[in-house]
Amino acid sequence: MRLCAVILAGGRGERFWPLSRRSRPKQLLPLLGDRPMLTLTIDRLDGLIAREDVWIFTARDLAPQVLEAAPGVPAAQVIGEPVGKNTAPALALAAWWLKDLGKDAVMVVLPSDHRVEPAQRFREDLERAAGVALERGAIVTFGIPPTRPETGYGYIEAGGAIAPGSPFHAVSAFREKPDLATAARYAADGKHLWNAGIFVFPPDVLLEEMRAHCPDIAALLPGMPLRPGEGSSAALERFYGAAPAISIDYAVMERSKRALVARADFAWDDMGSWASLATEDSVGPDGNVVRGTAILHDCKDVIAFSDGGLVAGVGVENLVIVRTRGVTLVCRRDRAQEVRAIVERLKERKDLDGYL
Amino acid sequence: MRLCAVILAGGRGERFWPLSRRSRPKQLLPLLGDRPMLTLTIDRLDGLIAREDVWIFTARDLAPQVLEAAPGVPAAQVIGEPVGKNTAPALALAAWWLKDLGKDAVMVVLPSDHRVEPAQRFREDLERAAGVALERGAIVTFGIPPTRPETGYGYIEAGGAIAPGSPFHAVSAFREKPDLATAARYAADGKHLWNAGIFVFPPDVLLEEMRAHCPDIAALLPGMPLRPGEGSSAALERFYGAAPAISIDYAVMERSKRALVARADFAWDDMGSWASLATEDSVGPDGNVVRGTAILHDCKDVIAFSDGGLVAGVGVENLVIVRTRGVTLVCRRDRAQEVRAIVERLKERKDLDGYL
Repeated sequence: MRLCAVILAGGRGERFWPLSRRSRPKQLLPLLGDRPMLTLTIDRLDGLIAREDVWIFTARDLAPQVLEAAPGVPAAQVIGEPVGKNTAPALALAAWWLKDLGKDAVMVVLPSDHRVEPAQRFREDLERAAGVALERGAIVTFGIPPTRPETGYGYIEAGGAIAPGSPFHAVSAFREKPDLATAARYAADGKHLWNAGIFVFPPDVLLEEMRAHCPDIAALLPGMPLRPGEGSSAALERFYGAAPAISIDYAVMERSKRALVARADFAWDDMGSWASLATEDSVGPDGNVVRGTAILHDCKDVIAFSDGGLVAGVGVENLVIVRTRGVTLVCRRDRAQEVRAIVERLKERKDLDGYL
Repeated sequence: MRLCAVILAGGRGERFWPLSRRSRPKQLLPLLGDRPMLTLTIDRLDGLIAREDVWIFTARDLAPQVLEAAPGVPAAQVIGEPVGKNTAPALALAAWWLKDLGKDAVMVVLPSDHRVEPAQRFREDLERAAGVALERGAIVTFGIPPTRPETGYGYIEAGGAIAPGSPFHAVSAFREKPDLATAARYAADGKHLWNAGIFVFPPDVLLEEMRAHCPDIAALLPGMPLRPGEGSSAALERFYGAAPAISIDYAVMERSKRALVARADFAWDDMGSWASLATEDSVGPDGNVVRGTAILHDCKDVIAFSDGGLVAGVGVENLVIVRTRGVTLVCRRDRAQEVRAIVERLKERKDLDGYL
């Protein structure tokens, strides 16, 4: 079995503003330690997938930074998309390039900016999923057993297990982000799992399902060179120019009869906002989380982040405090998603354009 | 009548940390507008006291910055004290240097870092006080009618008026900072006034009272040159080396029979903490006060101050948020005095010494 990773690193998140900017999105930020999320994503595969078998799709202008954050990954395998077309075109193209790798090749599709731990258990889950995907010609996605009624995630409803006691299940349905009442029901019924955006499949299986369910994209593939790299820039332009913008969930997963969902054994978080920095490991005795230099005097449940300079807190609670080179953000912790409102306000203010 | 101002600018406040530092105390900060508090203090006298009649006492190491913040004030009249000895020695020395100015000379002693407005009414009050001080050979201090039961100020208990309806009263007593119950009584009884640290007197009167009540300091004066300036640095060293550290309140005011208190017509605040930035003029519709660049989204009663860079708030209330070049401070507004706790913590942390 030969596992290849296809890491999706095209995001342009605004939810970690002011640290994230257009030119430095979440996957390039060191939100969980000293290294960028993307680097952690690659490191996490060590021992399971060699760096020469790692492929990364990102936006063209981000490609140099992505390459820098991906030591050991061949430059030709960092694909700079001329225009973002969601996930389905990128994965079809990756499968096209990986289809001749051998009968035992399996693609592992991973987001570049999520928290996943512990790494060992994650690798075991991936390896097992690769075995099932190969054996059954399946597309395996991962579902995380919910720990709270989260309204920010999509859900997968699991059907019957493929064997008694197996973590692999048929997929009954993919569910959009629910309202709170629905999320509470999902979290309690034991059947609904968080959609982690991780997929495991042999390249040929995806190509077949693409041809069956998304012929628009499949039809573009025979025009592409058999290897990425030099000389293919015009082909890439054509492909991305013509491909519809559609997610792999819509294009394939919701229609395919070959989809399976694996109940994950690892902990997962999509790192959707500054509030995500509060993980089990990072929270101190007063509920505070400190990244960078901070002095918190009589503070509680504060997330303090500095990428330079000191953050000082006096008598405050339930806040996110972020200090970057040019901006200080202070946000109620349960409203960390609303950082986007500031970004929107900045877009209206020509004089403050530099802070975007 | 010739009025001279003696401005006391030796403070080393920590309560406006991180903006204030040892080398840049409150009087040198632009807390109320674009110019330092000291500059505003001098400007406020325009039309009443000429700049060549302004004297400033400060710490020796601060003298260059003080001079810069005091355009038009003669350099020889910016006195850099080799060591701080509270207010009595400085005022005795000022009176010594001003005693030969003429029979109609009156000294006006002013703190350098308080908010006083409107300026016109303040000047009228000072001029009237100078007249009374000269006519009666009195030391007039100013009392501010309390608007709240403030525990952070000293109080003056006023006795009988010098004439029916006059704002000038005998002094019954000087009161230390009270506890809350006492402050509430003071604020309600109509007799107690906030001690604003402003004094008006002819130089000779102070010298006589010094000789009577504080002979230790008075005895040092005949050894001093008759004018400040070059060649007097050794004399200044001797004077400050020998003088006891004592306030003018203790040394003279509490003992003198020539003390009067004037009920002030102007508004006054000692600018004791970041919370003082919320003045009637500065508070916006949501109770927010913004100095510098800030975007406050759904925030209430927030004081945001930046001396460079953007402050962004989302959904927070009752906070002081300060961004300086090296530090971000977030403090509950009613605990702004506790900024000192951070300063104390920093003193214990050698690695964070640069933030003091």
